[in-house]
Amino acid sequence: MRDETESNDSASPRPESSSPHAVRYQLHHTDANCAARLGTLTTPRGEVPLPTFMPVGTVGTVKGLVIDQVAATGAGIILGNTYHLALRPGAEVVSQLGGLHAFSGWSGPILTDSGGFQVFSLAERVKITEQGAQFQSHIDGARLSLTPEESIAIQEQLGSDIAMQLDHVIALPAERPAIADAMLRSVRWAERCQQAARREDQSIFAIVQGGLDPELRQESAERLVELDFAGYAIGGLSVGEPPAEMYSTIEVTTPHLPVDRPRYLMGVGKPEDLIEAVYRGVDMFDCVMPTRNGRNALAFTDEGPVRLRNECHKVDPRPLEEDCPCPACRHSRGYLRHLFMAGEMLGPVLLSIHNLTYYQRLMAGAREAIAADRYAEYRQQKLAGWQSGG
Amino acid sequence: MRDETESNDSASPRPESSSPHAVRYQLHHTDANCAARLGTLTTPRGEVPLPTFMPVGTVGTVKGLVIDQVAATGAGIILGNTYHLALRPGAEVVSQLGGLHAFSGWSGPILTDSGGFQVFSLAERVKITEQGAQFQSHIDGARLSLTPEESIAIQEQLGSDIAMQLDHVIALPAERPAIADAMLRSVRWAERCQQAARREDQSIFAIVQGGLDPELRQESAERLVELDFAGYAIGGLSVGEPPAEMYSTIEVTTPHLPVDRPRYLMGVGKPEDLIEAVYRGVDMFDCVMPTRNGRNALAFTDEGPVRLRNECHKVDPRPLEEDCPCPACRHSRGYLRHLFMAGEMLGPVLLSIHNLTYYQRLMAGAREAIAADRYAEYRQQKLAGWQSGG
Repeated sequence: MRDETESNDSASPRPESSSPHAVRYQLHHTDANCAARLGTLTTPRGEVPLPTFMPVGTVGTVKGLVIDQVAATGAGIILGNTYHLALRPGAEVVSQLGGLHAFSGWSGPILTDSGGFQVFSLAERVKITEQGAQFQSHIDGARLSLTPEESIAIQEQLGSDIAMQLDHVIALPAERPAIADAMLRSVRWAERCQQAARREDQSIFAIVQGGLDPELRQESAERLVELDFAGYAIGGLSVGEPPAEMYSTIEVTTPHLPVDRPRYLMGVGKPEDLIEAVYRGVDMFDCVMPTRNGRNALAFTDEGPVRLRNECHKVDPRPLEEDCPCPACRHSRGYLRHLFMAGEMLGPVLLSIHNLTYYQRLMAGAREAIAADRYAEYRQQKLAGWQSGG
Repeated sequence: MRDETESNDSASPRPESSSPHAVRYQLHHTDANCAARLGTLTTPRGEVPLPTFMPVGTVGTVKGLVIDQVAATGAGIILGNTYHLALRPGAEVVSQLGGLHAFSGWSGPILTDSGGFQVFSLAERVKITEQGAQFQSHIDGARLSLTPEESIAIQEQLGSDIAMQLDHVIALPAERPAIADAMLRSVRWAERCQQAARREDQSIFAIVQGGLDPELRQESAERLVELDFAGYAIGGLSVGEPPAEMYSTIEVTTPHLPVDRPRYLMGVGKPEDLIEAVYRGVDMFDCVMPTRNGRNALAFTDEGPVRLRNECHKVDPRPLEEDCPCPACRHSRGYLRHLFMAGEMLGPVLLSIHNLTYYQRLMAGAREAIAADRYAEYRQQKLAGWQSGG
């Protein structure tokens, strides 16, 4: 593990990261009163201020949004799903059409997951061996396999800037030996991914596993850090465990991760989860929640979620949020409700945009607060606001 | 009927229209070799160069498009459906939320139809008397009525710039007496609409009826022109008759319409229909075709329609049209096909944008050609292009 050389002085110049990877992290400042970090992720396709939230563009599209609309929400990096893209249209097709950037029209950085979590959650008849995963496509039942080497090969065809290692995801709760076994297998797979990588313009993030067990999490982190990855993800959380357990697991993991590498909490989460995880030193997030909830007429606001199908919004002339610059907030709540009641596609589109904008503004506010050593206050203020309405 | 004072000299200054209405038309130039007209529609909410195509925003939304995207296609005026809006959310709700402009976020001119055509085509158990239409809502079966006075009252609540008279639409083919009867009733209803109108910032367009019968069309036009409306629509076409019969009906109608009033062909149509109708002196169009076909993976291009689900587009890196500035044309055909094959909402959104952009560019090209007395040539060139591919 690397030396921790954190400083609370955001003004002092900081030497570039010592990372040999194409994707690098520079820590600018850690909040004086908590573990929240302000930094910059540098990639071959531009820089992203951290902490940040990555909108999920499952099959090369953030559902319903023209790519300029995604950029206008404030997103700096988006995520693509390897499993989905490999099944449809196929990595070969994406590659022939110029890779995922040209395909989707997103010229900024892209992170692709490994496909492991989707195999675990979507595929049928999944069988895990030391070699990899065997399973059936959830679309057409085709018999497929995904090994660490295949996952990296697919992600190289997609041409993302950040590839995720294939990891062994297991359902919780589980027995400790099973969790340890999957964690150790994930470490071995991380090394195989590293060995398989060929593209110099793509960096791999490793994934810390170990369930809710602090010792296993520590062991996973230490073994992976020894292998020296461009970044480290915390995986296997937000799968049904109580929030407090997720937060404590983050808390026991981040101290074992190097300060000069980005930390990515996979598949998380609600606004409060992001706020709590940033507090504990996490830099990156992804989740379908803003878009999926948006499609279901639920809008995130500083006063808690607003359910737009409710009758009370029928002739409400107010926007969702007075100070939100998004196109949904140029309309009345009454109009947005009408779109959902009439089954109009524009409802899901506008609410997806609003929710993504909400998440980006939440992270922008976090960055500002960290720079001023006020993150703990920012956290309290946001949590109080969400509890007030809702 | 007014004197025809057309001139082919586009450079000579032309006096303002003598229309007493809030919505006025100024003819700038008639093509030297055909009846195609270049003009300007002036409304309380801005000017629109004619000929133009009006995107259909049925219930206060052009399906799937954020209102800025509608503007970016080049649209100058949009259409709202009175029948749909009256049923859901209700004209009272739209009015409470500031009228259709504030509701939909479109600050330019809006034309609303009368609801008559939708009663004819969508409602159940329709009964027409001299008083008006009685019918059942297609949404919840509620027993409703629509008289000329009610139609205008609803359109005044919606607050559109142009209201359409309620007309008596009948299915074709029909016996001549039935067509004549509906035509004469429509004239009486036009007068009742005129009498009922209260808003000075809203103008009414009358609707010429008379089936495919030249004499009835002439009589309808002459009677309506005598009543002096802000504009004249040609209704009851594009309901299944052969294109040649539609074109000849337009041809026998437009000579009986005043040159200083706009002419609107309702519910039309395919690109070739627009081109043929402009050739015969029509100024305004509306149709769901660009958006409905777009949602069904059909794109309009200068080489004819492209069906994007076809296998041949799978790895095609070309855009739909090289010179099209729309966001769909920043992607490959392969990507657009993928969106439809994966059932992604962005497919319908992007193709709706492309098709609306195509229609607006078609009309912009028409205006340019008319100004140069080259419209007949433009027409030939477009028709030849559509026949070449397809």
